[in-house]
Amino acid sequence: MTSVINVNLPEQSYEIAIAPASLDQLGQQMASLNLGKKVLLVSNPTIFRHYGERAITSLTSAGFEFASCTLPPGERYKTLNSIQKLYDAALENRLERSSTMVALGGGVIGDMTGFAAATWLRGINVVQVPTTLLAMVDSAIGGKTGVNHPHGKNLIGAFHQPRLVLIDPEVLKTLPMREFQAGMAEVIKYGVIWDAELFTQLEQSKRLDQLRYVKAELVNSILTRSCQAKADVVGKDEKEAGLRAILNYGHTIGHAVESLTGYRLVNHGEAVAIGMVAAGQIAVNLEMWTKEDAERQNALIQKTGLPVKLPDGVDIEAIIEALQLDKKVKAGKVRFVLPTQIGVVTVTDDVPSDIIRQVLQGM
Amino acid sequence: MTSVINVNLPEQSYEIAIAPASLDQLGQQMASLNLGKKVLLVSNPTIFRHYGERAITSLTSAGFEFASCTLPPGERYKTLNSIQKLYDAALENRLERSSTMVALGGGVIGDMTGFAAATWLRGINVVQVPTTLLAMVDSAIGGKTGVNHPHGKNLIGAFHQPRLVLIDPEVLKTLPMREFQAGMAEVIKYGVIWDAELFTQLEQSKRLDQLRYVKAELVNSILTRSCQAKADVVGKDEKEAGLRAILNYGHTIGHAVESLTGYRLVNHGEAVAIGMVAAGQIAVNLEMWTKEDAERQNALIQKTGLPVKLPDGVDIEAIIEALQLDKKVKAGKVRFVLPTQIGVVTVTDDVPSDIIRQVLQGM
Repeated sequence: MTSVINVNLPEQSYEIAIAPASLDQLGQQMASLNLGKKVLLVSNPTIFRHYGERAITSLTSAGFEFASCTLPPGERYKTLNSIQKLYDAALENRLERSSTMVALGGGVIGDMTGFAAATWLRGINVVQVPTTLLAMVDSAIGGKTGVNHPHGKNLIGAFHQPRLVLIDPEVLKTLPMREFQAGMAEVIKYGVIWDAELFTQLEQSKRLDQLRYVKAELVNSILTRSCQAKADVVGKDEKEAGLRAILNYGHTIGHAVESLTGYRLVNHGEAVAIGMVAAGQIAVNLEMWTKEDAERQNALIQKTGLPVKLPDGVDIEAIIEALQLDKKVKAGKVRFVLPTQIGVVTVTDDVPSDIIRQVLQGM
Repeated sequence: MTSVINVNLPEQSYEIAIAPASLDQLGQQMASLNLGKKVLLVSNPTIFRHYGERAITSLTSAGFEFASCTLPPGERYKTLNSIQKLYDAALENRLERSSTMVALGGGVIGDMTGFAAATWLRGINVVQVPTTLLAMVDSAIGGKTGVNHPHGKNLIGAFHQPRLVLIDPEVLKTLPMREFQAGMAEVIKYGVIWDAELFTQLEQSKRLDQLRYVKAELVNSILTRSCQAKADVVGKDEKEAGLRAILNYGHTIGHAVESLTGYRLVNHGEAVAIGMVAAGQIAVNLEMWTKEDAERQNALIQKTGLPVKLPDGVDIEAIIEALQLDKKVKAGKVRFVLPTQIGVVTVTDDVPSDIIRQVLQGM
């Protein structure tokens, strides 16, 4: 069963292809895009050990010349230093403007590979082959690339759309449970901001905390509906002039929590879960959202095994200060995405600090 | 006397404003563009000493909040390390997505400021205020930004169009003679590739080696016709899919010479002059161009005081090898821009190495 979702953009459209065992089709799929012969495959050592050979076999049998480069795993290596290594590999392998970097990995590999591709020779091709749920439903789609500044996440980056996103759901089988749950945070997000039907489907599943307890039909729905939601939003607002901001639901406070815990204690999905609980409660306190809907959201988050409370020891005033560093700050005002019903959100920069403080103290 | 040239692009058009004393109008001109209040002024220490105060006075009286950052001068500081300093200044001054970096300086400052603006928060505004002839007629226009990799020039970069290019011809008075001549290389280039009328005007001037010997009328023509040529070409092909490649006339061998002399012995304009002599001779040897026109070109280059021969000690085989690193290489083939008459060029990747070798040996 193959699903193809189109991301329609003015300058360059592309496909998200979702199919079991599609990793073996990588070279063939790329061959249909008229790319140059040279490919730099970027991964981390663990993913490369699991799936590198299959990707390479597929690339070489489709006639591509490949080189590979692995980067250490984890958000704390998402730095300009790692990008330098990709530049060095690009130089060593004489990548040309028609060449392609292939990101085989999670969000960190995808973001860095995308940024290196965006800035090498002022932009070469990138293909995203996400191997985590989070990357599949979110970071691999939409062209946001970036690396962290020591003082803030993704402060350095560029918009650079992939030529293809290839999703092989079978690779989720080797994904650690905690990372599966982290991806589910973004899936729940799509339910709250865009797709009430997806939200209801998630509610109907007995368990959401481990892949093996989720029915194949629901896994399929999770992937296709999430990718479709992202493609819809990005297709309407590629560069985040307006609508796309809704994808940041849960990310305002989420990013602050991630940053303050050094990108280690709390992972991105967990931080987004905490951020959604906070944003939901802010919306309730501002009388924009019902307490009942907020509880339905929080119940889904809990059923997934994600946190609904701030980690111990995080200073609330430090969170409020860190919000000022958010990329979405405008004229010193922090922008929040707040739900008004399941499937619908609104964007506001008019949340009083006192309400934020009060909500965080209650968590 | 004010000239305004429009650069018309699908996503964002902008003006090149050329007027004496326009440096004092910087703030006012920017105020009309609906930019955010925060400005980071980027310059090098010498330029900042000459013109920083006037720029700042103009910005503050137009209501902008400014911070400034100076970077050491010279191509060898055009590195990711310098970009890091700009990121740090952006963070320290809490630049937002609506904020603007203003590049006050030559090509190095313009390229680095443009790259930092392209990649901070995935792209903030940049305004170019070029202070060298080379930056005025070339690098400040068209959105190419970049930094050097230790093994090649501008290998790292992005396309990022400025919101405004402000040219004050009066600042050329403090430009060292050698840098004036370097800029003239690009002016002669426009004559050869695009504007035969400009070429003839240059031929009619007795001297071209120092600004003070060039009539005001010709200076005006040099600036407006060169900027118009660049705007025409970029407007037709922003991302260098085709036509824009003609702007690289003289740059294929030029970049190799610059790189092999460590960006010190030979400056960019001088390297382009050498590259134009070489490309012209290649075209003559391939019977695409007349010997007479090539001699007219070389006479203009000499009248400007620019070199027409390779610097001593540069290894010809090393040049031929360095050509393979050029951004314009495709499937291992080096792309050359070759003149067919004054004002017209063609692009080819079919120049035998033997011809290149033979031409370089004759220089």
